[in-house]
Amino acid sequence: MSPTRPLVISVPEPRSIDLIFTKSDEKLLRSHYELVEGLGPTVVATVEDNIAEATFIMGQPDLSTALLQKAKKLKAIFNVESNFLDNMDYDYCFAHGIHVLTTGRVFAAPVAEIGLGLALSLERNIVGADRAFRHGKELWGGDGNAEARLISGGNIGFIGFGDLGRALNRLLAGFRANIRVFDPWLPNALLEDQGVHPTSLDEVLTKSDVIFVVASVTSDNGGFLGATEFAKMKKGTSFVLLSRAGVVDFDALMEAVKSGHIRAASDVYPQEPLAADHPVRKLEGFILSAHRAGALDVAFKQMGRMVLDDMELLSRGLPPVTCRRAERESVRRMRSKPVSKN
Amino acid sequence: MSPTRPLVISVPEPRSIDLIFTKSDEKLLRSHYELVEGLGPTVVATVEDNIAEATFIMGQPDLSTALLQKAKKLKAIFNVESNFLDNMDYDYCFAHGIHVLTTGRVFAAPVAEIGLGLALSLERNIVGADRAFRHGKELWGGDGNAEARLISGGNIGFIGFGDLGRALNRLLAGFRANIRVFDPWLPNALLEDQGVHPTSLDEVLTKSDVIFVVASVTSDNGGFLGATEFAKMKKGTSFVLLSRAGVVDFDALMEAVKSGHIRAASDVYPQEPLAADHPVRKLEGFILSAHRAGALDVAFKQMGRMVLDDMELLSRGLPPVTCRRAERESVRRMRSKPVSKN
Amino acid sequence: MSPTRPLVISVPEPRSIDLIFTKSDEKLLRSHYELVEGLGPTVVATVEDNIAEATFIMGQPDLSTALLQKAKKLKAIFNVESNFLDNMDYDYCFAHGIHVLTTGRVFAAPVAEIGLGLALSLERNIVGADRAFRHGKELWGGDGNAEARLISGGNIGFIGFGDLGRALNRLLAGFRANIRVFDPWLPNALLEDQGVHPTSLDEVLTKSDVIFVVASVTSDNGGFLGATEFAKMKKGTSFVLLSRAGVVDFDALMEAVKSGHIRAASDVYPQEPLAADHPVRKLEGFILSAHRAGALDVAFKQMGRMVLDDMELLSRGLPPVTCRRAERESVRRMRSKPVSKN
Amino acid sequence: MSPTRPLVISVPEPRSIDLIFTKSDEKLLRSHYELVEGLGPTVVATVEDNIAEATFIMGQPDLSTALLQKAKKLKAIFNVESNFLDNMDYDYCFAHGIHVLTTGRVFAAPVAEIGLGLALSLERNIVGADRAFRHGKELWGGDGNAEARLISGGNIGFIGFGDLGRALNRLLAGFRANIRVFDPWLPNALLEDQGVHPTSLDEVLTKSDVIFVVASVTSDNGGFLGATEFAKMKKGTSFVLLSRAGVVDFDALMEAVKSGHIRAASDVYPQEPLAADHPVRKLEGFILSAHRAGALDVAFKQMGRMVLDDMELLSRGLPPVTCRRAERESVRRMRSKPVSKN
Repeated sequence: MSPTRPLVISVPEPRSIDLIFTKSDEKLLRSHYELVEGLGPTVVATVEDNIAEATFIMGQPDLSTALLQKAKKLKAIFNVESNFLDNMDYDYCFAHGIHVLTTGRVFAAPVAEIGLGLALSLERNIVGADRAFRHGKELWGGDGNAEARLISGGNIGFIGFGDLGRALNRLLAGFRANIRVFDPWLPNALLEDQGVHPTSLDEVLTKSDVIFVVASVTSDNGGFLGATEFAKMKKGTSFVLLSRAGVVDFDALMEAVKSGHIRAASDVYPQEPLAADHPVRKLEGFILSAHRAGALDVAFKQMGRMVLDDMELLSRGLPPVTCRRAERESVRRMRSKPVSKN
Repeated sequence: MSPTRPLVISVPEPRSIDLIFTKSDEKLLRSHYELVEGLGPTVVATVEDNIAEATFIMGQPDLSTALLQKAKKLKAIFNVESNFLDNMDYDYCFAHGIHVLTTGRVFAAPVAEIGLGLALSLERNIVGADRAFRHGKELWGGDGNAEARLISGGNIGFIGFGDLGRALNRLLAGFRANIRVFDPWLPNALLEDQGVHPTSLDEVLTKSDVIFVVASVTSDNGGFLGATEFAKMKKGTSFVLLSRAGVVDFDALMEAVKSGHIRAASDVYPQEPLAADHPVRKLEGFILSAHRAGALDVAFKQMGRMVLDDMELLSRGLPPVTCRRAERESVRRMRSKPVSKN
Repeated sequence: MSPTRPLVISVPEPRSIDLIFTKSDEKLLRSHYELVEGLGPTVVATVEDNIAEATFIMGQPDLSTALLQKAKKLKAIFNVESNFLDNMDYDYCFAHGIHVLTTGRVFAAPVAEIGLGLALSLERNIVGADRAFRHGKELWGGDGNAEARLISGGNIGFIGFGDLGRALNRLLAGFRANIRVFDPWLPNALLEDQGVHPTSLDEVLTKSDVIFVVASVTSDNGGFLGATEFAKMKKGTSFVLLSRAGVVDFDALMEAVKSGHIRAASDVYPQEPLAADHPVRKLEGFILSAHRAGALDVAFKQMGRMVLDDMELLSRGLPPVTCRRAERESVRRMRSKPVSKN
Repeated sequence: MSPTRPLVISVPEPRSIDLIFTKSDEKLLRSHYELVEGLGPTVVATVEDNIAEATFIMGQPDLSTALLQKAKKLKAIFNVESNFLDNMDYDYCFAHGIHVLTTGRVFAAPVAEIGLGLALSLERNIVGADRAFRHGKELWGGDGNAEARLISGGNIGFIGFGDLGRALNRLLAGFRANIRVFDPWLPNALLEDQGVHPTSLDEVLTKSDVIFVVASVTSDNGGFLGATEFAKMKKGTSFVLLSRAGVVDFDALMEAVKSGHIRAASDVYPQEPLAADHPVRKLEGFILSAHRAGALDVAFKQMGRMVLDDMELLSRGLPPVTCRRAERESVRRMRSKPVSKN
């Protein structure tokens, strides 16, 4: 409780301290650090008034070069929204040793779990068979399994292999599947070390029974999965879209499902919330989830824990190891839309 | 192709050679063994006429003591239905070194996979959320996750730990969950060696977030999961019934779900097919699967492979290692109903 | 402490109750069962006088047909030496439902651990380099690694895949090696399910960097690894002999090491103890271990635990699941010499 | 083969291109990049003459601020020696977006393997028993196992948990041991995610049967394992020193072994090479390895592969992901001595 506790500017919107800290972690935060808090209209002033003395910023406020030049003690900015927006002078941060960190990794485990659940639901028709049963049209035994497949020992494709891909790969350990991965940002050796097979997009598309899309949207890959790519997939492929709708041509996806070529599940949509009359709502062979994959309380609470862990290391003069860092080379390629709700 | 190929009596009903052998395995079967085949009305005569010379029986025909006494060359009976019925003189077989074997293990992997899929669907409300979405009532983001939970690191309970329990435990490896198991037929040391925690039924019921019922029905455990047991579960427990309906009081199960105390999924029912007006068809919080969990073509084909593998070992004078053996002590305790369809 | 406790004939020599039970397990044994104990000259009479009333025999005494015919209550014989000797009427036991069980599995984990230690010692020359260092002749850094190899990702061969092979395979999990297995008693599917590659003896011999011999001696395989087989190995192969010396031509093994063709480690020898002037004692490139691989106190104590676990199941009318059973087909093929010391 | 191939200054001493690249990787290197090579006396001029145009430096030459100011195109410096020396202006690099990278991770797998081999050798007395056998003084069976222990299920302690700790943890997966880790640079959550138990140094010292020292020397921890720490260990602890001799008081270590309190193995020494009359050469209960743990050809060749992988990403404008980066906060805390030989 010393007067020399490091100063933290807390402007986590759209998150809140309540959302991202457990009670006991909030207590730790407040006892180890001096907090100045901004909310809505007070965010700008809170940042401006305190940045000269602040050691940490928790949040993703606009930070101009002029503001950052005042930040003589600033060690790190913790982005708890998890998308790197084009609202701060990253180059200044990199040049001056200010870490820009994100807690986005907390969503990997919950998204991976629902992703596997969606894949199993597609492979075994869990959703459709329940619907049929409720309408008295269920098929018993083997009759209900015409299109059923095992994931164990099967051909699984990943598009992307960031935190989410790794989490999904971990969950799949017990299935002993043949996992092919396309991720142009990662060398083969690194993927092989994770027990997966690095390969081309084409091979993922043409050889997989289940395809997981776990790639972030970047300036390079908007809508890169369109009609051509769906046509390359084997008939009956299960397509699970988990990261961002921006990487697919959603109309082409719906068409591929409607035609019976593939089955699909998605947690993300071109507009959210989705129009009441959007045709995907009536599409058979498509499992609908309303951007719920990551937003678990346990994930949000892990954010606060990660912030505390890296603040502690930085306070001791050590490098942060828990949050992911913005990278000079890639920070401006990221194009995910910010979330408006938790 | 020698004239001395071992004789196999093939009476696999309700299975068929077509169902349980791939084309290439059927070819192997027919080239290594001499088959006599019975079907429907010809089964009895096929068995009677050939048992004196047969080395193997593939199927589960009635086998009286008198018939077995003629079976001087018989090494093994392969039950490909997978339930041990009360239709043969098991004691005679045990006393005379005739193995009675079952290929039931083939169902473990497919049932485990849909079991995990059902558990993830319950934990993340995959089925209910899709239904709501189709009715324009979806909840977005965290709003849709009020009762969502992770399996990773969670408290999972197994009732029973036979082939199916092991398969499910393998699939769960990547979740690093705390798995408690109640199985009174297995010593603690054996369970601990599988990385699970042996415990009492009570502890499984009261401590688990997800409970998998993977126990066979025996003469001891009919309906042993009733209103008292459901009441012991924590509110919000996900209950996944995979083995046989006979182990639960199904009305009590429905009541526990209807009251909102637990959520459930089931692949098995007291009557199959189920009456068109059975109330479970309208029950919210219950995922319905029409005894489809195991009946995958890939599982049936594995049966034939297992039969071939153990026939080959037995033909070489070695013990069978692939199929599970009927046991003197337990064969008469088993009470599962035979299947009428594949 | 009821007068109706099951009677156990305890004649475990060369083991002893002290050796194979922890204090608390011995207490359990004595409280749940009534023991009659025989030692040395009293063994025969102890068996004869009590066999009519005994439920269990713990030990491996001579059991003639005449004696067994008196054993009307006998459920199981627990062989705690672990080799099935030709000193009892196994057929009588099989025909009459008397289990003949062995606790030999307890040695799998300790033998596997020293086996991996010996392999790593060979691959990295741990023993030889320590000897050189003590003589002031050590080679520093890369100079000392001319023949060093990683096991991670390497080509490993197993000859045999019983309990010991499985234990070793488990220990090797983290090495992600390519493990080829030759075991003519096991079907390919079973081996593949363990994550290893079933193959021929020839392929194991010619493709492996490290070969583990973990096969039991049988009537078929005495001395089956001789000069021809050693010649097939790649130059520099590390050969680790863990099961029984009877499977190799020991002179040919020494010659293959002496010539520099392979390096080797062994825990077993044609005669034990070995003559003081046996040439292997001076052989460079050979690591010597004096049949110590399995004989750990913790392994012996596990024997008692296994006996208790299966006695309890059998007492409740359930089949034993912990000990391995003698098999009609194979019991008379086993040819390991009994141990004379623990 | 374009004239616009990026320029690489290649001054890898004490490594060489031959040492760290396979033939095919060297071919790739030379075809994708234009190399200028310096050796011995020509290093300084090679750097000075080319730094203005170079995209990459492969090596660890002296780099003054003045030199770096000329390096307008420089993206990364690949330190292939693996220690960060105090011979360049790291702050300038950090401020100007020049990555300083190390390939030191290549040593993790080989050091971990010999580390496990040394631990198994200590736990089972592989080295001592071989020596005794050669002198005709071997103890057979259980007599030779008075101090033998299993690692499986045992209490293992790690001091440090960098690349080497992780590699060792991976190798230990199959042993299912209870692994306690002391690493003050890492938060508990990160260690728990790796399946190990974060704890204090004291608990590692007092509770472990085997202790692995895998911590780097830093400005904070020189000689931090001394007489007091060895005294805290349980009698019979196996102590395996793998990282750097600088973290232990070597005389105190020898004394702890000499007194019979612990047993030890070491790959590193206060002076290397070690004096011919150094007393550790005669110490019983101590396994000697002459800094050979990492220096495998396969590890050196992986260096070149890592350099190629990250050069390729950087050339495409992406962040490096394979090599480890020097960190602003920690680069000056590292105090390992450079190697003089490979």
